[in-house]
Amino acid sequence: MSEAPAPAARVRLDFRVHEAASGPAAGEVRERDVRVPPGVAVFDAASWNGIAIDSTCGGHGTCHKCKVRITDAEDVEVTRHDAKTFSAEELADGWRLACLVRAQRDLRVDVPPLVTRPKAATVGVGRQVILRPAVQKRYVELDEPTLSDQRTDLERLLGALDDLDVTVDLPVLRRLPGELRRHDFKVTAVVDDTSLVDVEGGDTTAVCHGIAFDLGTTTVVATLLDLTTGTPKAVASRLNAQQPFGADVITRISATMMDPDALDRLRALAAETLDALAQEVCKDAGVDPEHVYEVALAGNATMTALALGIDPEPLGVAPFVMSTAHPPVVLASDLGVAVHPRARAVLFPALGAYVGGDIVAGMLATGMDRDKRTRLFIDVGTNCEIVLSDGDRIVATAAPAGPAFEGGAIRSGMRASDGAIEVVRLAVDPKAVEAVTLGVIGDVAPRGLCGSGLVDAVAELVRVGLLDASGRFVTDEVAAQRVPHLAPRLTTVDQERIFRLADDVVLSQRDVRELQFAKAAISTGWTLLLEELGLEPGDVQQVLLAGSFGSYISAASAVRIGLVPPLPALRIVSAGNVAGEGAKMALLSVRERAGAVALLEEVTYVELSDRSDFNDRFVDLLAFPV
Amino acid sequence: MSEAPAPAARVRLDFRVHEAASGPAAGEVRERDVRVPPGVAVFDAASWNGIAIDSTCGGHGTCHKCKVRITDAEDVEVTRHDAKTFSAEELADGWRLACLVRAQRDLRVDVPPLVTRPKAATVGVGRQVILRPAVQKRYVELDEPTLSDQRTDLERLLGALDDLDVTVDLPVLRRLPGELRRHDFKVTAVVDDTSLVDVEGGDTTAVCHGIAFDLGTTTVVATLLDLTTGTPKAVASRLNAQQPFGADVITRISATMMDPDALDRLRALAAETLDALAQEVCKDAGVDPEHVYEVALAGNATMTALALGIDPEPLGVAPFVMSTAHPPVVLASDLGVAVHPRARAVLFPALGAYVGGDIVAGMLATGMDRDKRTRLFIDVGTNCEIVLSDGDRIVATAAPAGPAFEGGAIRSGMRASDGAIEVVRLAVDPKAVEAVTLGVIGDVAPRGLCGSGLVDAVAELVRVGLLDASGRFVTDEVAAQRVPHLAPRLTTVDQERIFRLADDVVLSQRDVRELQFAKAAISTGWTLLLEELGLEPGDVQQVLLAGSFGSYISAASAVRIGLVPPLPALRIVSAGNVAGEGAKMALLSVRERAGAVALLEEVTYVELSDRSDFNDRFVDLLAFPV
Repeated sequence: MSEAPAPAARVRLDFRVHEAASGPAAGEVRERDVRVPPGVAVFDAASWNGIAIDSTCGGHGTCHKCKVRITDAEDVEVTRHDAKTFSAEELADGWRLACLVRAQRDLRVDVPPLVTRPKAATVGVGRQVILRPAVQKRYVELDEPTLSDQRTDLERLLGALDDLDVTVDLPVLRRLPGELRRHDFKVTAVVDDTSLVDVEGGDTTAVCHGIAFDLGTTTVVATLLDLTTGTPKAVASRLNAQQPFGADVITRISATMMDPDALDRLRALAAETLDALAQEVCKDAGVDPEHVYEVALAGNATMTALALGIDPEPLGVAPFVMSTAHPPVVLASDLGVAVHPRARAVLFPALGAYVGGDIVAGMLATGMDRDKRTRLFIDVGTNCEIVLSDGDRIVATAAPAGPAFEGGAIRSGMRASDGAIEVVRLAVDPKAVEAVTLGVIGDVAPRGLCGSGLVDAVAELVRVGLLDASGRFVTDEVAAQRVPHLAPRLTTVDQERIFRLADDVVLSQRDVRELQFAKAAISTGWTLLLEELGLEPGDVQQVLLAGSFGSYISAASAVRIGLVPPLPALRIVSAGNVAGEGAKMALLSVRERAGAVALLEEVTYVELSDRSDFNDRFVDLLAFPV
Repeated sequence: MSEAPAPAARVRLDFRVHEAASGPAAGEVRERDVRVPPGVAVFDAASWNGIAIDSTCGGHGTCHKCKVRITDAEDVEVTRHDAKTFSAEELADGWRLACLVRAQRDLRVDVPPLVTRPKAATVGVGRQVILRPAVQKRYVELDEPTLSDQRTDLERLLGALDDLDVTVDLPVLRRLPGELRRHDFKVTAVVDDTSLVDVEGGDTTAVCHGIAFDLGTTTVVATLLDLTTGTPKAVASRLNAQQPFGADVITRISATMMDPDALDRLRALAAETLDALAQEVCKDAGVDPEHVYEVALAGNATMTALALGIDPEPLGVAPFVMSTAHPPVVLASDLGVAVHPRARAVLFPALGAYVGGDIVAGMLATGMDRDKRTRLFIDVGTNCEIVLSDGDRIVATAAPAGPAFEGGAIRSGMRASDGAIEVVRLAVDPKAVEAVTLGVIGDVAPRGLCGSGLVDAVAELVRVGLLDASGRFVTDEVAAQRVPHLAPRLTTVDQERIFRLADDVVLSQRDVRELQFAKAAISTGWTLLLEELGLEPGDVQQVLLAGSFGSYISAASAVRIGLVPPLPALRIVSAGNVAGEGAKMALLSVRERAGAVALLEEVTYVELSDRSDFNDRFVDLLAFPV
């Protein structure tokens, strides 16, 4: 949607956070200013920035605990919940429920001392998340019914959860009468946001888990989290069992177009992979799968569609349309994951067919919308997702980088597994002990070249002068003159110029071209995003290289080949598996989860495939920087 | 809950309804005042009283069409929807959206002429229902996606339904991409209230059905309705297949307590009965069951629990507690009814374990909360439900009448089927051609006595003086003196006094006692309800005898034995199958459906089993009125 309106400017909230009268910071007042998109609830704005405000309902306006004082509240609406909570005098004095105040302009907010101490966990790129999972357990001891108190079982239970607004569906209702009576009306209610997941006899509040899934096209990772503490209890990963249908999303989409049964098969294989991982992490941690009450899943748009059994064909052909940006409410069992039968599965929303839920999760984990710096996020892969924020506005796009980074279409290319060269250093000094230094995965003899090794190799060849700026290998004469100790490795085989990295591993002229195409696509992407925000490459203060491949690229080599803007290496950071971190955050905090949804409103998606200037830029950017 | 607070007094709404400038009543203004419980939306108050106001969203505040002018609106809240819809001047002038104004005090409401002509249907006890089913079909022709319009399929569809606030779940989402593309983006959206039930290719708006079920303990009735016109297309009834588990709710509850598998069996039998009826009415009307998009079901609390597979045990033992008053949102398929796979099943809420959804449906159908008269509603059966309204307040209770009315514990008792005596007339004049006149079902030889025949027989025996006020048969001497032509039929068999109605049909002294106990339980019920509202029996302006049995009782006989207050026969009305009528109304109008839920707030349930004065009254009321 290239004609999308420019993202709105943010509003500023000045928080004055009052510490409790006792404790280490007794009576202190901390000041914090944060900027959020207009319309965000004050409660969310605080939560996203690590400022804790009392609440038990998770921001639904039902617990009436998140009291704050807006110091200039004249035009701030008084909702009926506010009217119930505060006196007329307090309302006039600016007191409001923080979850109900939408920040439409700059506000000054006084936060009173906390009544309860919040727990926090560190997730994502070193971010503190205030622990407030959607799943809550509440132990209640109810009065037994009598002829003068004939409240229904459900009324009796919900009466004890009156700070929450809870609905119940048939399977739980079926269990309710028996469970209450077998346990003398002493039970633990398991609530997920606004729905009652289960009623368990006795006090089971200490046992509460969730699983975060990163559903990658290649690799799937599961992390079992203790939701009472935020601690990871077990992690496991395995290859996506859909692999036999093709290495990338396009081949898998094609499979569904060729064979009417392929969608069902692919869905079953996703289910198989997710469930195997769920059982594995539960076994590792000694946790009963029935005590996993929620799962979160981050995946690209195609992986998400396949896992849900939604026909992915419109994702694979122009104009690249998703069925929905916001996945529906589903259960873990809908994904084939056998945990608690009523456990919900929370799937990340997507920005577009090629900027999916994995990237939204990554933006959440890296705090792309909560940092004042100008930052560039690049998830390098067959499809490369690029996000740019100037601290106020965020733009995103996808660039078709092709299979080079995953070892595809590369003569000695291979996945990043044992025997893959992942680091390459070439000596400029002819007297160096080793002309070529290789880092090989698994400390075995080199068998091939993985993506990061490819980037390193090309970057080093450019640096030592064996590849010119246009990407062409120099002649033998030039080579012998510039780097006599490396020149013998540059030869011609089958009429193609190659550079020999090891006995069985070479880099060909065609390989260099593949990488040039890939990096040109990516740099065209971020160049156009920079233009969109009126910035120069040098304005970027941090580059985050994300994803299972991107995280391993050498910063210096990435700069050398022009994959990223020309910045000091320290500004280029490996972000790791940010999709998985985002999924964890969604499990640990309903506010962070709301933040992921809010991102969709904040980020402007820029479609490159209909830009008339794309090809011009692309050709300009094929060359290596000089 | 005998200590429940007295129901709040109603508020009065004075409507001034403006007719369109053209048409039969061009430019006229009709005045109507109605009374509703405080807090009811003005839109609902109008709808319940047959006053039509424009709306397409069904009262969710999303279509912004239900404009009215409150002539004294100073303290009437301006919601954000109002602020979007009206200018500041209009707001100051009292314009509001009728669905968002809650009537907290008396209001005067101007209703502008309708833009669209509402359809209405006659249901219930002659009530006009404005046709506004929860199920709506909308035919839309969408723009096909392009690179510059990459809206998701769902966004595109919902964009065309922007007066509705619709959510979508996974099964529908799975169908969406294919259905849109196979039909060139010309589809019909099937919406049930706020959820998208299906997307159908092309324009299918003319085809839209629902089924109303009356799930009785004995008999189950299904009515297929055309939701586009409100017309019934087919009706069918059959015995509840749960019968082998016992004739009444208590024996069925007992079955579940004895045998752990009985609940599943009973649930399956309810499903079998409902589905057989659904298939039958569809076949009769030539309607594809897939075109039935919603079903409504009224049943007592036990029948409802069994159909849902909820353990009924707590309903059967003191203190008689329901799992919930408001059945959860379920699908027709959850009840085993094979219509459209996403069709919702709407179950009536219940007031108490023995004043169930069937009675709430009956109150809706009879308009118990929308009549200024003092009315008494009695659903006669093994469990007898009694509701009393004085036009302002409504109280309800249940009385254990025992099986007499269904022919149980009665020597010649039988169900109301072929051969059952249902009418009895005794001649006082010895010269009458027939001393005994019998009405027999099916015009065959009499085989037994059904409930209405039992009431008639006893009432006639009292009238002619063969039974004294205490319920004892008179001596042979007294009989011969009072009614010599009838005396020979009064004899003693096996030491028990009997009256011979026909060759094989007798009424025994013990039968009379059974009926006395039953009618005493019922009259104790309404006597205590009258006291609750400070009324005398003579204050009752109408008695509604409801249910498959109650509807057949002779008004004169009911008065004679004291089953109902001593009123002129014209004030005693057979109401028919009001539960089924209520179910139809719920299908035809979301506002009526909301009215059923509102009834729960309006009606005070009076528990008799812990009343210390119950037994005293009961003994007083055993005798027949003299």
